[in-house]
Amino acid sequence: MKKIQFADQKQEFNKRPSKIGRRSLSRSISQSSTDSYSSAASYTDSSDDETSPRDKQQKNSKGNGDFCIKNIKQADFGRREIEIAEQEMPALMALRKRAQGEKPLAGAKIVGCTHITAQTAVLMETLSALGAQCRWAACNIYSTQNEVAAALAEGGEAHVFAWKGESEDDFWWCIDRCVNVEGWQPNMILDDGGDLTHWIYKKYPSMFKKIKGIVEESVTGVHRLYQLSKAGKLCVPAMNVNDSLVVFNNMQCCKVNTPASTLLKRTTDVMFGGKQVVVCGYGEVGKGCCAALKAMGSIVYVTEIDPICALQACMDGFRLVKLTEVIRQVDIVITCTGNKNVVVRENLDRMKNGCIVCNMGHSNTEIDVSSLRTPELTWERVRSQVDHVIWPDGKRIVLLAEGRLLNLSCSTVPTFVLSITATTQALALIELYNAPEGRYKQDVYLLPKKMDEYVASLHLPTFDAHLTELSDEQAKYLGLNKNGPFKPNYYR
Amino acid sequence: MKKIQFADQKQEFNKRPSKIGRRSLSRSISQSSTDSYSSAASYTDSSDDETSPRDKQQKNSKGNGDFCIKNIKQADFGRREIEIAEQEMPALMALRKRAQGEKPLAGAKIVGCTHITAQTAVLMETLSALGAQCRWAACNIYSTQNEVAAALAEGGEAHVFAWKGESEDDFWWCIDRCVNVEGWQPNMILDDGGDLTHWIYKKYPSMFKKIKGIVEESVTGVHRLYQLSKAGKLCVPAMNVNDSLVVFNNMQCCKVNTPASTLLKRTTDVMFGGKQVVVCGYGEVGKGCCAALKAMGSIVYVTEIDPICALQACMDGFRLVKLTEVIRQVDIVITCTGNKNVVVRENLDRMKNGCIVCNMGHSNTEIDVSSLRTPELTWERVRSQVDHVIWPDGKRIVLLAEGRLLNLSCSTVPTFVLSITATTQALALIELYNAPEGRYKQDVYLLPKKMDEYVASLHLPTFDAHLTELSDEQAKYLGLNKNGPFKPNYYR
Amino acid sequence: MKKIQFADQKQEFNKRPSKIGRRSLSRSISQSSTDSYSSAASYTDSSDDETSPRDKQQKNSKGNGDFCIKNIKQADFGRREIEIAEQEMPALMALRKRAQGEKPLAGAKIVGCTHITAQTAVLMETLSALGAQCRWAACNIYSTQNEVAAALAEGGEAHVFAWKGESEDDFWWCIDRCVNVEGWQPNMILDDGGDLTHWIYKKYPSMFKKIKGIVEESVTGVHRLYQLSKAGKLCVPAMNVNDSLVVFNNMQCCKVNTPASTLLKRTTDVMFGGKQVVVCGYGEVGKGCCAALKAMGSIVYVTEIDPICALQACMDGFRLVKLTEVIRQVDIVITCTGNKNVVVRENLDRMKNGCIVCNMGHSNTEIDVSSLRTPELTWERVRSQVDHVIWPDGKRIVLLAEGRLLNLSCSTVPTFVLSITATTQALALIELYNAPEGRYKQDVYLLPKKMDEYVASLHLPTFDAHLTELSDEQAKYLGLNKNGPFKPNYYR
Amino acid sequence: MKKIQFADQKQEFNKRPSKIGRRSLSRSISQSSTDSYSSAASYTDSSDDETSPRDKQQKNSKGNGDFCIKNIKQADFGRREIEIAEQEMPALMALRKRAQGEKPLAGAKIVGCTHITAQTAVLMETLSALGAQCRWAACNIYSTQNEVAAALAEGGEAHVFAWKGESEDDFWWCIDRCVNVEGWQPNMILDDGGDLTHWIYKKYPSMFKKIKGIVEESVTGVHRLYQLSKAGKLCVPAMNVNDSLVVFNNMQCCKVNTPASTLLKRTTDVMFGGKQVVVCGYGEVGKGCCAALKAMGSIVYVTEIDPICALQACMDGFRLVKLTEVIRQVDIVITCTGNKNVVVRENLDRMKNGCIVCNMGHSNTEIDVSSLRTPELTWERVRSQVDHVIWPDGKRIVLLAEGRLLNLSCSTVPTFVLSITATTQALALIELYNAPEGRYKQDVYLLPKKMDEYVASLHLPTFDAHLTELSDEQAKYLGLNKNGPFKPNYYR
Repeated sequence: MKKIQFADQKQEFNKRPSKIGRRSLSRSISQSSTDSYSSAASYTDSSDDETSPRDKQQKNSKGNGDFCIKNIKQADFGRREIEIAEQEMPALMALRKRAQGEKPLAGAKIVGCTHITAQTAVLMETLSALGAQCRWAACNIYSTQNEVAAALAEGGEAHVFAWKGESEDDFWWCIDRCVNVEGWQPNMILDDGGDLTHWIYKKYPSMFKKIKGIVEESVTGVHRLYQLSKAGKLCVPAMNVNDSLVVFNNMQCCKVNTPASTLLKRTTDVMFGGKQVVVCGYGEVGKGCCAALKAMGSIVYVTEIDPICALQACMDGFRLVKLTEVIRQVDIVITCTGNKNVVVRENLDRMKNGCIVCNMGHSNTEIDVSSLRTPELTWERVRSQVDHVIWPDGKRIVLLAEGRLLNLSCSTVPTFVLSITATTQALALIELYNAPEGRYKQDVYLLPKKMDEYVASLHLPTFDAHLTELSDEQAKYLGLNKNGPFKPNYYR
Repeated sequence: MKKIQFADQKQEFNKRPSKIGRRSLSRSISQSSTDSYSSAASYTDSSDDETSPRDKQQKNSKGNGDFCIKNIKQADFGRREIEIAEQEMPALMALRKRAQGEKPLAGAKIVGCTHITAQTAVLMETLSALGAQCRWAACNIYSTQNEVAAALAEGGEAHVFAWKGESEDDFWWCIDRCVNVEGWQPNMILDDGGDLTHWIYKKYPSMFKKIKGIVEESVTGVHRLYQLSKAGKLCVPAMNVNDSLVVFNNMQCCKVNTPASTLLKRTTDVMFGGKQVVVCGYGEVGKGCCAALKAMGSIVYVTEIDPICALQACMDGFRLVKLTEVIRQVDIVITCTGNKNVVVRENLDRMKNGCIVCNMGHSNTEIDVSSLRTPELTWERVRSQVDHVIWPDGKRIVLLAEGRLLNLSCSTVPTFVLSITATTQALALIELYNAPEGRYKQDVYLLPKKMDEYVASLHLPTFDAHLTELSDEQAKYLGLNKNGPFKPNYYR
Repeated sequence: MKKIQFADQKQEFNKRPSKIGRRSLSRSISQSSTDSYSSAASYTDSSDDETSPRDKQQKNSKGNGDFCIKNIKQADFGRREIEIAEQEMPALMALRKRAQGEKPLAGAKIVGCTHITAQTAVLMETLSALGAQCRWAACNIYSTQNEVAAALAEGGEAHVFAWKGESEDDFWWCIDRCVNVEGWQPNMILDDGGDLTHWIYKKYPSMFKKIKGIVEESVTGVHRLYQLSKAGKLCVPAMNVNDSLVVFNNMQCCKVNTPASTLLKRTTDVMFGGKQVVVCGYGEVGKGCCAALKAMGSIVYVTEIDPICALQACMDGFRLVKLTEVIRQVDIVITCTGNKNVVVRENLDRMKNGCIVCNMGHSNTEIDVSSLRTPELTWERVRSQVDHVIWPDGKRIVLLAEGRLLNLSCSTVPTFVLSITATTQALALIELYNAPEGRYKQDVYLLPKKMDEYVASLHLPTFDAHLTELSDEQAKYLGLNKNGPFKPNYYR
Repeated sequence: MKKIQFADQKQEFNKRPSKIGRRSLSRSISQSSTDSYSSAASYTDSSDDETSPRDKQQKNSKGNGDFCIKNIKQADFGRREIEIAEQEMPALMALRKRAQGEKPLAGAKIVGCTHITAQTAVLMETLSALGAQCRWAACNIYSTQNEVAAALAEGGEAHVFAWKGESEDDFWWCIDRCVNVEGWQPNMILDDGGDLTHWIYKKYPSMFKKIKGIVEESVTGVHRLYQLSKAGKLCVPAMNVNDSLVVFNNMQCCKVNTPASTLLKRTTDVMFGGKQVVVCGYGEVGKGCCAALKAMGSIVYVTEIDPICALQACMDGFRLVKLTEVIRQVDIVITCTGNKNVVVRENLDRMKNGCIVCNMGHSNTEIDVSSLRTPELTWERVRSQVDHVIWPDGKRIVLLAEGRLLNLSCSTVPTFVLSITATTQALALIELYNAPEGRYKQDVYLLPKKMDEYVASLHLPTFDAHLTELSDEQAKYLGLNKNGPFKPNYYR
């Protein structure tokens, strides 16, 4: 392996809206004894073992050691979690069964960077079953389920480099270990957030010669791909999974409930009924937040800059205000703007005692947290990801996650929704890997509508749902093929 | 005026999904003494005056007779309705005030074909105030508010040719009277449904030489324009108002509640709680229907042909079935598919006694009503637009509107929502009329996002809403102009 | 018939919270050409016939003239309405069938005072079928469906004295005609509002010697009965139908949606989304109002005097304010307090232009309407039951129903809900009429829980509902009889 | 201390619906490494310290050792939790302040048995501040927050005997340690579930001579008190806090959301949208469950034995079925009946693979779990309180909490709701302790409405709520005192 200095990535990182917090943060977090991240599903005992996984020599029961995880001994616990997830991911299991004979990914060498959870484990093992070789890193320093990583390492089919609580340096080291291997070169990328793609662009640009395509899931990663494409720098075809119709729709239905329940999880003893809340921004996330809060009985105010979204907020029954109008009276402030410095020190100074402040937007700078790092204010960590910031007069502000984006991706999304995403990712990999020369250019694509419909149809048996078939006469009347696609590609 | 035979339009009409019912229907309806269409707002006494407006000679108080309406004496009642509507249409009034000095429509000769209601009257008088000359026909044979038409005729600024209960022949005659005038030729078209545009294409194609553009509101009309454009036959620029973001969003919010409340109005004594309902089709209208019915406590089943929409229905909590699975048990059947023969005689034969059947889709052929016109079945009209079809064994099916599309457009949409549409129409007319040569080709356009945002901002004062302004720093961060547009044109 | 002067009732009436408006009002209403009361279901043509029913001599086809209604010729229309209602009142039809053999009301002479609608007609004809003789008056001067009254008169089994648009004098005259008959004396009373009971107390107190009991439906009437009972003046047993569990529950479910939809009906073009509304009072009606308004997207404020209800409002997510805090900003003011002078002139002076004011409470004095009858204010009737009150500066307040209680009882309650009430009334009459001497004292009773459960079970087939039966073991465990009653009498 | 054999309680315990599981259960639970009970708020590290608290000698920093808890060293963590709770319990803090001068509980010796959480700690310390001496045990073997118990022991004002994971023997030992003290005898009881009261009845009946009253919170405990009263065995006055209006209302609002979110917490990766669920029983809990599930998009079926509740379910839009009709198709089965053997082995045999079964009712016997303890079925614990029961053919049923009642009381109820209960408990203690001789007999009482209203008013400032005051004229009109009580005592 080539020697690379990872620390020099730090500065660059600070410029990008990324999923990692600052180094100092990760340290303070790891000191906290109870991270609610782990939720009910984690069997990880993190307290007694302080050795870094990078310094451990572990082998699985077959003697293979080409992985780096917390503790291979947790494999059994992880396998059970994967089995539970399999039950809620029938489409992937069906895909595994249907496509297994033909091994449509035979010869595929996939390098991946996603959350390492039971659900993605089902995806990875499906890709293996379809013929692919896989190497995998985590796209988030906190979200890895260590026992699942152990099960994958034990299974031996996916080479996993990930653990919960990586440092920033660890993060890039893991990605590098996936990519930078003697005698093995990836020909497909599955990315979530664009960090893996970014790393290859920076360090191993020549690898793209052999890469057949990128499948990207996140809004951020897709945005970067479009920018690369616009700049003429995208050198392989990419598939935008995030905007696949079926993924989009189903994420929508879940966004509505997620933000509030996340908040609830963090601060379990708050009652939302009657609480006054201001939500900054009425885009997709803001709309979801507001609807969930209203359903729980909160009194919700909205701020917006765009008159169209503002009018929607009004007609949906939310008072449209400037932040300063309500800042003294609200109990909770939530930012969902994608903008920066939406909540500044001046606003924070005026909030009332006990006000909760958090960020559910796209950037980590929506709340100007740096302005709170001044000598007269005292910080007190009361729970994992919950700080009290205390003013000289005793007023306390409750700041969640130090103003960073409350991570929504892995904690509260039901397995079934993840199943739709994962199935789409698998089909996108198959499509790009098997596409005849020239079908896809160096551009960003959506999955063909017909495959979208196939993903959907794979999930219908779960609901014992019975699809109606068009008669010949009806198909003719509508100008459609009886087997679809039923919607034009531009349909939303 | 040139002599034209209107009756020959009948056959052609039958081929198109149109807003007019069959001739026989309109006769049976007009015999009915209470048409719930009139709702609370109509002061029209239709019972005593059987003379056709075409046979009357009426003049307004200024001696002008270039109109054709039911009864000019109702003008005062209509004026009051218009004044009430003005209170809920502040944006149009603001537009009237702001743009009045410059008369941006000076010289415009607008021919229009829309519902003739208090709300469109406010639009017409705004267009006049901005400098335009207007001639207007109704886009629906039932929806004209006669007293409003009278007020417009009395005001003298809009030449109106419309009354409630037109025959099909009347319908085309009125349109022709708007267009076919000695010494006056339209240079702008405002259409709702495409019938006016269609008529000019058929009868006076040369008129398009002077026409600067078409503004079209309805889904159907927009669809036709796109077809014309695709076929290379669109000879002037057209503006698609229906898909303007602000119009789209606000119509959405209202679609959700409209279908059910329309049903409710027709059959006031039905309780929806606990009723089993099957909704055929889970597109926009179907989604709205299902949500409203669920909120009212109905047990809702859905049929779909498209697996993506089917999956949405499942995740939204509706059982996806084939129609035959539930047809024996349901209390209400609603079609919203855009397809034909979705409910056929075989289905109708199996329904239980008292089952209500209605169509909220896009076509009049979703329910195969013709199959019910057989000797062994008895039809009994019990209320306006409500028939009992009686089987030999005494079973009754309650058929609404003879299976035609329940008209949603004018009866239940709040004035404020219409205000958004009307303001967008006015701005679209101004834009097309004043656009420099070459900005718009012979194609179908959406209103520029910036004007969309302007329409929205004109409606914010109603809600006492306070928009937040971007700081310079934030605008730079987001790469936006502080005054908008805030969203890219493709944003939905 | 004894001669009685009815006009002297007027003064007394003014003291009571009653369902009749002032005489002057009824006149102004009857001048209005479109009363939205009639809704879709009325075939009555009221315009051409100005003769008072009291001055007409009508006979039905059997030569019987012992009734007083608008027009016997409308009987066929009314019969159709009754037949439609029968379809939604299966329990009453089942009762008719089951109990017909034994005629449990043979010998009963029932005098009734309720709304005269298709639904009560089904009740009356059921009572006849069970053996009773009936004489009936209307409990509300506006709510009679003339064609239904005609059908009842034609059927000949119920002697009806009622028409739409009675004067106050007519109202008492009709009641008297029911009671004051040569050679016929009632032995049962079915009342809705207590006016009939009141009349007999006043004029014919000796009649109570033969009366076996009173069945009363309304809150107001029940309240009066409890007062009589408390004062030791109740001289026969009375059954409180309003608080029967099954009636109560089902009315609840409908109260939630009724107020707003009533408002909607009155003022069809108002959009509730984003409107600011203050609801005075958070009792049952207030809660229903607030929930419905919130669901429609309104921003709702609440005023309360009782800290318990106030806390509920807070926890349900409504801001608790004093009226003066929000009076300048709200779009709609709704009173539901049961108190008087809740909205006074000072409040009205401060409302903004276009503010809608209405009363959904229990008394007609919640809004101090008399304070608006001053010379500087102009009243303008814009629709039936909708007035604009205009301030010297042009400000308009929209006052509904002149501040009287918006009548909820007959216009918007689904037939099925009325079926539950009517079935309960029928069972209550049977119970009181057949009860062995001594079971009921001179007190107010609730229907025995077991009969309540019977009413419910009669309605289950409509929903194809399958009740679970207790096993012997389970019944023993719970200490219940397998056939009920399942709940103690005090259960709510 | 007198020597008492605790094990002999076991048999008796089995007869009662209690909050403790069987002994074997508690063992299996304690073996589970992650008990989701602890939720986010527990700092307890239970893994390393296996010594029973009963065998430890601990003293607080003042040298006092009259308590028995897990670990006195956790006191600081617990104090912080208490401080956080204080912020959400303003009414209790206000009460502490207002009543502190007069010490209304001076001389009170309170023995309590409740959940030991941060919220009850605020109550205990309030009682101390008001003058009382307190000794406290836990009412549930799992629910104690060890660090809070430590903080209370350290504070020294409440003598606490409780830890998380008590055995059944520990449970009664702790209660005994509270009561059975040399030179100290309680004169007030605060109970939650009736176990403390029961113990004193059994072991120290003579203590009741000095006891002034019992304040009881739980449904179960209140039920027992009413039974004692009925049997003439209640020897002191008791206050039923559970049915206090303000407590009742507020618990209601929270019951609606609790069951589903509890389920969600247990099995985080289940999506409820589109899942078919059967809820057995449509009482208070069942209604809440159904509403929450419907809101989350589940398809809900209901079973009922009582036609009244059945009809409500129908009108609320749920299909009423017998369990056997749907048992093969449902994804989730929830019991809320209060009955026994509602789900039996035959039903379990027919459920489909993956079906989730749980009990939210009042008894632990609703699901016949004992029938699943047969050799051919394999039990597999997959998470804390989640078992897979595996049939020979591989079918798995997911059984929650071994069919015992999912404990709702402490995990998901917001602090604010608990504040209302705690304030009511404090006022009830003050009322009973200070009541003049003879005001309360040996019976079960509700808190006077006026004190109920006082509890409510203490909570209004949290919402910045402004109560309206009656004018003299209005108070007279309503026949009320301006300061309340505003509702009659029977008002619900």
